[in-house]
Amino acid sequence: MTIEFIAGPNVEGLAISEAVRAGDFVFLSGLAGFGPDGEIVSGGVAAETDRIMLEVKDILGRAGLRLSDIVKVNVHLRDANDADQFNAAYEKYFPEAKPARIAIVTELLNGGLIELEVVAYGAKSRGGEER
Amino acid sequence: MTIEFIAGPNVEGLAISEAVRAGDFVFLSGLAGFGPDGEIVSGGVAAETDRIMLEVKDILGRAGLRLSDIVKVNVHLRDANDADQFNAAYEKYFPEAKPARIAIVTELLNGGLIELEVVAYGAKSRGGEER
Amino acid sequence: MTIEFIAGPNVEGLAISEAVRAGDFVFLSGLAGFGPDGEIVSGGVAAETDRIMLEVKDILGRAGLRLSDIVKVNVHLRDANDADQFNAAYEKYFPEAKPARIAIVTELLNGGLIELEVVAYGAKSRGGEER
Repeated sequence: MTIEFIAGPNVEGLAISEAVRAGDFVFLSGLAGFGPDGEIVSGGVAAETDRIMLEVKDILGRAGLRLSDIVKVNVHLRDANDADQFNAAYEKYFPEAKPARIAIVTELLNGGLIELEVVAYGAKSRGGEER
Repeated sequence: MTIEFIAGPNVEGLAISEAVRAGDFVFLSGLAGFGPDGEIVSGGVAAETDRIMLEVKDILGRAGLRLSDIVKVNVHLRDANDADQFNAAYEKYFPEAKPARIAIVTELLNGGLIELEVVAYGAKSRGGEER
Repeated sequence: MTIEFIAGPNVEGLAISEAVRAGDFVFLSGLAGFGPDGEIVSGGVAAETDRIMLEVKDILGRAGLRLSDIVKVNVHLRDANDADQFNAAYEKYFPEAKPARIAIVTELLNGGLIELEVVAYGAKSRGGEER
């Protein structure tokens, strides 16, 4: 019955948490493909997706979860033509545990081509070891 | 505390599940008005909505739930002018148990006029009988 | 394991609930900055945000919750240029308990500049007192 706000360096000074745990659910804030230098990585939608998934894995790890605990992904693409390239990059991360998903095309608030929204599920006590 | 990935023929070969059960919640993937022939049904937004709701009922049934277990619906319309027609079609399915809802207008990744995103709630053991 | 549909005067005659409680989660319907006269308030995105947050607080109160129980906010802006003004208005409401958040730019189904989608978490029995 507790809420845990998970903050990291990426959201310092902003009115958001990187993720919030509510019971056994973990809600991540929208993620764009920002590299360590604070710029969207180059290489197009596949490179941005890889960068985002790295970030997702890191945030989930801090919440005691892993990629296979993801239950829902909302995909926000800037350009419908990027859908196939996105899919090719995305499916590598979900060989078996395939989250429910919806993808729409919309304007985004940063310079990226894609933004992902992730919901995961799992008790904190399970630990974040690789699987 | 378990996650159950619900896959059907509609998502074969894709990196998504039709629905995912996480505890007592069931998250459905985005649904468009595809008919049995794999094409968006003709007849406009009302016909597509009816087709989607048929699909929703089927997927929920396989998750042991029914329409009255839906708690949240996100509506993605391609054209704001379709809102009234959509509403007329939609409200038939929720005479009493009315889900929380948000509707936005956005480009979609298929040829349809509408896509729905559904979250339902209920223990699997309750069974999927009609109500 | 129960679902509770929370209806108020704002949704009379519509096929939606203002909010739905599912277990310890409360899902709110999309909220725009409508004033008591049924018109979007004037003053731009900050004024609309304030109006929406007033409504959020009221609805959560009826569900036995408060603003600090919000775990996720989806922001739908009509105009990307409103992002800074929105942020300035929004952050006042979350000095410590900062929800996970995603913001996208999209066409909306009413005359407003912004629509918010809120998920909160907390048992009903905790009561809705100020904090």
